[in-house]
Amino acid sequence: EDAAYFSSYSHFSIHMDMLQDKVRTESYRDFIMTNQHLFKDKVVLDVGCGTGILSMFAARAGASQVIAVDQSEIIYKAMDIVRENNLDHVIKLIKGRVEDIQLPVEKVDVIISEWMGYFLLFESMLDTVLYARDQWLAPGGSVYPDRCTISLVAIGDTKMHSNRVAFWDDVYGFKMTCMRSDVTKEGSVEEIDPETVMSEPSLIKMVDCCSVLVAELDFTADFSLKATRDGTCTGIGGYFDIVFEKDCTNKVYFSTAPNCMKTHWKQTLFLLEKPVDMKQGDLMSGKISVKKNKKDPRALVIRIEITNTGQVLDFQLQ
Amino acid sequence: EDAAYFSSYSHFSIHMDMLQDKVRTESYRDFIMTNQHLFKDKVVLDVGCGTGILSMFAARAGASQVIAVDQSEIIYKAMDIVRENNLDHVIKLIKGRVEDIQLPVEKVDVIISEWMGYFLLFESMLDTVLYARDQWLAPGGSVYPDRCTISLVAIGDTKMHSNRVAFWDDVYGFKMTCMRSDVTKEGSVEEIDPETVMSEPSLIKMVDCCSVLVAELDFTADFSLKATRDGTCTGIGGYFDIVFEKDCTNKVYFSTAPNCMKTHWKQTLFLLEKPVDMKQGDLMSGKISVKKNKKDPRALVIRIEITNTGQVLDFQLQ
Repeated sequence: EDAAYFSSYSHFSIHMDMLQDKVRTESYRDFIMTNQHLFKDKVVLDVGCGTGILSMFAARAGASQVIAVDQSEIIYKAMDIVRENNLDHVIKLIKGRVEDIQLPVEKVDVIISEWMGYFLLFESMLDTVLYARDQWLAPGGSVYPDRCTISLVAIGDTKMHSNRVAFWDDVYGFKMTCMRSDVTKEGSVEEIDPETVMSEPSLIKMVDCCSVLVAELDFTADFSLKATRDGTCTGIGGYFDIVFEKDCTNKVYFSTAPNCMKTHWKQTLFLLEKPVDMKQGDLMSGKISVKKNKKDPRALVIRIEITNTGQVLDFQLQ
Repeated sequence: EDAAYFSSYSHFSIHMDMLQDKVRTESYRDFIMTNQHLFKDKVVLDVGCGTGILSMFAARAGASQVIAVDQSEIIYKAMDIVRENNLDHVIKLIKGRVEDIQLPVEKVDVIISEWMGYFLLFESMLDTVLYARDQWLAPGGSVYPDRCTISLVAIGDTKMHSNRVAFWDDVYGFKMTCMRSDVTKEGSVEEIDPETVMSEPSLIKMVDCCSVLVAELDFTADFSLKATRDGTCTGIGGYFDIVFEKDCTNKVYFSTAPNCMKTHWKQTLFLLEKPVDMKQGDLMSGKISVKKNKKDPRALVIRIEITNTGQVLDFQLQ
């Protein structure tokens, strides 16, 4: 199953999408190039290096050595790319699972990685970064990005809700109501129209990558969504924010919220089976739990309980 | 490998996309409901029935019996749906590969199927329809849709070409030219902006589903694209047209061309490694061959030779 995961990163198109996601790539570039003191003469580990772009930024910022690891076949392209840019004296590429390989050094000063998945934690790649941290990060060393948060907002889009849920009640004159529950049992990754956001955000998780434990990535949190206008809440949207700040002279921040510049992560939408009418100022309160799917640890199982209405909603993100 | 293929049809979202593709579903509906004489008191076979929508149209049009076959798990939903609509006395659902099952009848009068893939032949599902035809279609019976064509057009979109090909020459200041060939070796499925079409279409294949042989689905054809304006041809677009006409009182036709209403099939784009300047009236002539990929018979291998420039381009569609 992990073979399929790594294989999905072997195709050029996913790397083109990531490189052409300017919010993502320019944030990493700006963090590295405007905080060169963090890299100058340092040993850097790049976890899941892909085409090697972050490693090359680190080399350009003065790293004495960069070790770049990836289990996907894309690393053979990274090897060509590093040679094309005459950086093979600085960047050492290793094909393998981080959990299986040996490093040519005892400790590294900095770990960089672009590990974020949909709804931040999809793919569970942060687990691998934390493994690398616990194994090889020198005392006082840092993991970047260092601070990540997950937030929720209420979404009001009755037309879209009806196109996906009520749709099944009359499909060209036939009933397909048995399909409805499938739609409302799955989180969907999509660009949420910022016009449909109808609440203030509620932060449900803060992750400090320098100290968080894998066990803390399965979590339960309370949320409270305060309506910014009257409307019918048809779903709950999720997104994440990323901050590079530890020891930075220039902090770099980006957000994947619906009202921000689009990224390849889009947002995550959890449809409510029963939409909820809200007045401006109303609070929708509840509890969310986010856990790895035991049968497929790169997927997530999400439960949202809405206190006001007693709804308990179970979603897969897969 | 076929397990992955059928599994991809088990998820609700692909069926929602297909049902909500109005060009597709309304064409089938209109063909069946405005040509009820083809279905009245007939035995109908639906190959790859999915949610059962075509079978229900056939039942509504007066079929005496409809046999609906699908190997994907979605057929369990179709069973619920057929019961929900009180059509279980007419529609019999069979889970299995068409090549493996036994039918409860000796012969069928009509075969309906929505088997079309990207660039018409991707997925090679027509092979299965032809197997069913040769095995069970009564003399004088028909397969619908009955006539399908594939066409090419020249595309001029220098901005897009440069975003995908020249892009790799300078990625945030680094060279990744070794990635270029991957991009130009793969056909991509996407919505081609009709404004970028710069030639008349050239028909490269006509398929009569009532008589074509599987062996004829691997083919080589000449094409000739006449420029409708001056411009730089950066790629060749492919699409298909579908006609329901045999014995029809109301013929139904739809096209997946770039200037027609969007469908979930979009179009297929083959990027030219080296763009070609053309003047209005110029002809770009050549030869195209389309074959199943021997290692993965549901994928296609496509070779385009352009006589004018001597370019020989090999593409995968996978």
